[in-house]
Amino acid sequence: MQLGGLVASAGINIGLAVIFYSLYSIFRKQRTNVNVYFPRYVLRQKNVFKTDRFKLASLVPSAGWIQRALQPSEEEIIASCGLDAAVLLRIFIFSMRFFAICTLIGVGILAPLNYTDNQVSHASQIGLLFDSLDLFTISNISNGSNRLWIHLAALYVISFSAYWLLHMEYKHVTQKRLEVLSTARPQPDQYTVLVRSIPRESQEESYSASIDRFFSQYHPHTYLSHQMVIRDWRVVRKKQTLESLVKEIERLKQIAPHERPTCRDGWLGLFGSKVDQLEFKSRKFEELFDDFREGQRELQNNGEAELPSAFVSFKSRWGAAMAAQTQQAENPMAWVTDWAPEPRDVYWPNLSIPLLLSKLYAIGVWVAVFAIILTFVIPVGLVQTIAQLENLRKWFPAIKIVLKIPGIKSVITGYLPSVLLSLLLYIVPSLMLFLSKVEGHVSRSTQEREAARKVFFFLVGNVFFISSLSGSLIDQLYAGFSEPKNIPNQLAIYVPRQSTFFITYILTTGWTGFSTEILQLGIFLLNFIKVRILGKTTFDETDTISLPYYRALPSVLLFILLGLMYAVLAPLLLPFLLIYLVFGYIVYRNQVLFVYEPSYETSGQFWPHVHSSVIFALVLMQITFIGVFGVKQKPNASILTIFLPFITLFFDNYCKSRFVPIFANLSMETTMKKDTEDEKSGAKDELLQCIQGSYKHPALQSLDLRKSDADDNTDLLLPETPV
Amino acid sequence: MQLGGLVASAGINIGLAVIFYSLYSIFRKQRTNVNVYFPRYVLRQKNVFKTDRFKLASLVPSAGWIQRALQPSEEEIIASCGLDAAVLLRIFIFSMRFFAICTLIGVGILAPLNYTDNQVSHASQIGLLFDSLDLFTISNISNGSNRLWIHLAALYVISFSAYWLLHMEYKHVTQKRLEVLSTARPQPDQYTVLVRSIPRESQEESYSASIDRFFSQYHPHTYLSHQMVIRDWRVVRKKQTLESLVKEIERLKQIAPHERPTCRDGWLGLFGSKVDQLEFKSRKFEELFDDFREGQRELQNNGEAELPSAFVSFKSRWGAAMAAQTQQAENPMAWVTDWAPEPRDVYWPNLSIPLLLSKLYAIGVWVAVFAIILTFVIPVGLVQTIAQLENLRKWFPAIKIVLKIPGIKSVITGYLPSVLLSLLLYIVPSLMLFLSKVEGHVSRSTQEREAARKVFFFLVGNVFFISSLSGSLIDQLYAGFSEPKNIPNQLAIYVPRQSTFFITYILTTGWTGFSTEILQLGIFLLNFIKVRILGKTTFDETDTISLPYYRALPSVLLFILLGLMYAVLAPLLLPFLLIYLVFGYIVYRNQVLFVYEPSYETSGQFWPHVHSSVIFALVLMQITFIGVFGVKQKPNASILTIFLPFITLFFDNYCKSRFVPIFANLSMETTMKKDTEDEKSGAKDELLQCIQGSYKHPALQSLDLRKSDADDNTDLLLPETPV
Repeated sequence: MQLGGLVASAGINIGLAVIFYSLYSIFRKQRTNVNVYFPRYVLRQKNVFKTDRFKLASLVPSAGWIQRALQPSEEEIIASCGLDAAVLLRIFIFSMRFFAICTLIGVGILAPLNYTDNQVSHASQIGLLFDSLDLFTISNISNGSNRLWIHLAALYVISFSAYWLLHMEYKHVTQKRLEVLSTARPQPDQYTVLVRSIPRESQEESYSASIDRFFSQYHPHTYLSHQMVIRDWRVVRKKQTLESLVKEIERLKQIAPHERPTCRDGWLGLFGSKVDQLEFKSRKFEELFDDFREGQRELQNNGEAELPSAFVSFKSRWGAAMAAQTQQAENPMAWVTDWAPEPRDVYWPNLSIPLLLSKLYAIGVWVAVFAIILTFVIPVGLVQTIAQLENLRKWFPAIKIVLKIPGIKSVITGYLPSVLLSLLLYIVPSLMLFLSKVEGHVSRSTQEREAARKVFFFLVGNVFFISSLSGSLIDQLYAGFSEPKNIPNQLAIYVPRQSTFFITYILTTGWTGFSTEILQLGIFLLNFIKVRILGKTTFDETDTISLPYYRALPSVLLFILLGLMYAVLAPLLLPFLLIYLVFGYIVYRNQVLFVYEPSYETSGQFWPHVHSSVIFALVLMQITFIGVFGVKQKPNASILTIFLPFITLFFDNYCKSRFVPIFANLSMETTMKKDTEDEKSGAKDELLQCIQGSYKHPALQSLDLRKSDADDNTDLLLPETPV
Repeated sequence: MQLGGLVASAGINIGLAVIFYSLYSIFRKQRTNVNVYFPRYVLRQKNVFKTDRFKLASLVPSAGWIQRALQPSEEEIIASCGLDAAVLLRIFIFSMRFFAICTLIGVGILAPLNYTDNQVSHASQIGLLFDSLDLFTISNISNGSNRLWIHLAALYVISFSAYWLLHMEYKHVTQKRLEVLSTARPQPDQYTVLVRSIPRESQEESYSASIDRFFSQYHPHTYLSHQMVIRDWRVVRKKQTLESLVKEIERLKQIAPHERPTCRDGWLGLFGSKVDQLEFKSRKFEELFDDFREGQRELQNNGEAELPSAFVSFKSRWGAAMAAQTQQAENPMAWVTDWAPEPRDVYWPNLSIPLLLSKLYAIGVWVAVFAIILTFVIPVGLVQTIAQLENLRKWFPAIKIVLKIPGIKSVITGYLPSVLLSLLLYIVPSLMLFLSKVEGHVSRSTQEREAARKVFFFLVGNVFFISSLSGSLIDQLYAGFSEPKNIPNQLAIYVPRQSTFFITYILTTGWTGFSTEILQLGIFLLNFIKVRILGKTTFDETDTISLPYYRALPSVLLFILLGLMYAVLAPLLLPFLLIYLVFGYIVYRNQVLFVYEPSYETSGQFWPHVHSSVIFALVLMQITFIGVFGVKQKPNASILTIFLPFITLFFDNYCKSRFVPIFANLSMETTMKKDTEDEKSGAKDELLQCIQGSYKHPALQSLDLRKSDADDNTDLLLPETPV
């Protein structure tokens, strides 16, 4: 792509971004969209608007929302949106800082250095094709030039700034995590351990009795109580029907009796006599409710419904920490203990999968992931071929006519491939989330984290490797993969050449991606239909959604990877990335504050995954440069680069032992300190009472006519009226 | 190599083996060699010989020793030589069983099946060179032949017998381990935890005080005492000098006063007046002893000599299990706990290395190991080239004359390369043990295990991959490595062709290797010099050696790998291997019973390493067959083979969760049961007394004039008079 293509692409995207953000700033001021853009306020029945009057200003686009999104401090965000949301924002803060340094070095030093050399013009004369943007990349440095020492220095400076910032960030996040854990109200998950593969002494003994026997014997001073996981889908399903009936009844009650719709009381509502719907539903509710209570009673006294898994609670955090971290039985496959997830985070269906079977599933799932990555090579590769006009001309001669339209060439090569790629990639996260569910993780948060890992793996495999290594799929598929010792060289040759593709990728997927994120077009349309056409005004709690980490994390991480790869190779990419990150920071701040209602809180447990992904990117960059300096005939620089991956590995190793355990365990020190505090304050007894019921199986929970999640949550400590 | 070469090689080796074993059976009957072949009896001052009279039969070779080696039951071996030795023998039992099955299938079914096809004779006609032994390998099966289904079936049968036997063996070993742990006399290591990276609240606080504060606070009910690791080399060195002086004095005391040698009391014993040696040494001892006691006193009261590591003992096994398995402090890099090794197993010098530094060392060591493997490619490859006569003729034309001597050709191609290889490989284990020491492992047993892992890694890398993939180094070095997707195919082509090389490798390294093991030539010669020339008769405890696991394990594992690789490809290798294994079993049984005095006891902790090495070999074999069936134009069989590696991985995964934790941890159940027993029997108080001094730093230990290791050990429950 020539400069023209880049300008066209940038123009289109800047235009789109301006349009989208303007639209957003208008939409959010409309009363009808309050369910779309402020569901967290609606959920808590807080006011969104300052006045009830209509103002003309609400039809004029403005940038005030940016200011409002940036206003709250990190502490306020942690208090109102949870640490997970705050940690997501830390990723942007880290990358903005890091790429600011990179941009300074790259655009300030490396780009001019590259531009003033003459390898490309020389190469052009002898017939090789180069884009004009390549003048700013390392490709323009002559072979063996001493200028490459500056690139080596830049590589070292960038690597060490990465270590420094990563360490700072890890420290900050762990500190916040420890603060949250120590100041938070006592959580049942700190007292509870999930026990799986519970054995029985005989067929007559119930699992429940077995647990009592075992823990009273081996944890005599700390064992408190347990709550069984049971085998049931009928009662839960009845409960769900009841809950939707309740909602329906609530809705019907608000309608005046004469306006209330009627329905037939026969089969499927198609036959029988006409009756008032409210009456009909209420009758149905009562019938079903008795049935449901009957089912619950049966389950409670039925040892046969018990599964060999349970949540075991302890009298102190210290006791739970001990039970969670030690091996319980002589046979390590029995009495397997682990920290319990938060009650609302538990994914009950997976608790019925035997532990051994889930290991088998895990192998199957990884085979599937690998297969998906391999099969996606085909469409992704095809998309890439479009980016190279010569190929397009070769295979579709008819396109020549289209290409005569002025400007269209730039659009096709610069814009179309990225759009196609983005569309194609939209379905992958959902697929990976499904696979992670199948893998048998027992909490939603773990499933999302594992999905994020898989998606990142996928993106690196497909977007990065295939896009950058096989300039054209059909010519070179697998060329880079078949010879591993050549990988550094292959990376060195192909990576710089694809920089313009990735600039447009950042422009389309990145910039416009955030616009669609903030506009929430799907939900916006649904709401529009609901409010304007169906005339609904109530707000269901199910209308709030939680932040899809498995979608947000991997794409940000991919952009960090891109930035790292091109920081020294093609520094012109960096300003675009920096703008992307600033956009992302603002948009996600806005979204976590006003839109996404967290459905669980892991206190930043996904940070280790973020950290190791950045480490992976660093190592990849450093290995690439071993090849780059080789290709550029500067073997000394190549040798000096070899130290970097080892330094990175050591740094990662250090971080793993310094920080990761904090995300996996509670220490003896922490738990005992907190226990002593609680004992002093006298809150302990009440607390233990409350814990004993918090891991009830959904089938045994009483029918909550109003869910209390939102009430449980801390109040929204945010701008009173955001608009 | 033709059949002739194989016969020559087998002949030489059988001859050598017969000579060596005959020599051994004579040597062991000689009274002067008792220190060489029965050091364990000498150490305990037990009788080796039935009568004191000289018998003519002692000059006649006999096979009675084999019977004596096989006599004791496994329980007796565990009781007298420890579980580690018994577990080493289990490897042979496992492989004998497994390869008996393989031999049945291979020689009974596959070899005739291969021989009756005609691919090789067909290939010979069109000019390809094949050895006559190749008629029995899979190379002789025609492409696309339906006979390959039998090979596939054999592959499945062999894989599943491996799973079955591996599982049985793992179960057996864990059971024995649990038995030993529960019946053994209470060991201090079951009550003790090694704590490293101890922080201090201030510079004034001593580490010792810090430990008392921390553990009294967070393990108030179970904390007993601690023993510091100190910084010292002077006192330890003085102690060593004193110990050797004591030995010298003992020796001098046995000599009549007038025969006693004299020495000069001046500088280096060269100047000054002549004095009686006994008197001189005794004087020296007293001087040094006072000095030593002074040094000890200084160390004891010196907080500055303390290092931030200590052995912390608990009042119960349960308390120690808890402390060893949980995270102690908020900062996971402080108060790092782990199970303490046995007191005699502790490698004190490494306890002074900071934990973080040892991580850095570990990276460096693995880089070094990798470099060693790569540099050894050159000599190993050169050795391989000799095996191919054409190459030899090409490079050393002068050799043609030598080759005219009848039989020499067979010796050169069949025997010389393996001998060279064995010699070359002799130094590797010591090198790897040194590297494992540098890595910073704090117990000798871990160092040996890690060295064994490295040596196996090395052997697989060099002997197997290089030998089998690059038929000739100079022609094909790296040919197999540069294209990973071709690795199955490369393996499929080259592995079968090298079968004759590996048969001779088994003959030389294996058969003759065991002869040298049992003859202990080095020690035999040293003893000869000592007894016959220097006239010494005393037996030093330092004369006993412990079994060098880092040498024994990897080579047996390599032979298992070879057997697995060739079980289906070239089944004629199997009988040779089976004989090797029988030899090995007898020889090692003899050696652990009579020669090697265990210097530590890990209760079979190296079994997980053995298991995973066999798993590695299985996966390698299965991947090879994906390629073999591909090369043989039987794609359906190839596809059916793909499932096998996944089944193996799942099986391994299962074993990892079922068995490995038993080798790493003591469970709450086990420890509490044992604690209760002790409490009932009233042995507890005495026990805790004994534990408190068992991890004293060597510099603080009192001068043992006689070491008590052997006395501590269980009595030798073995044949009273083995000769």
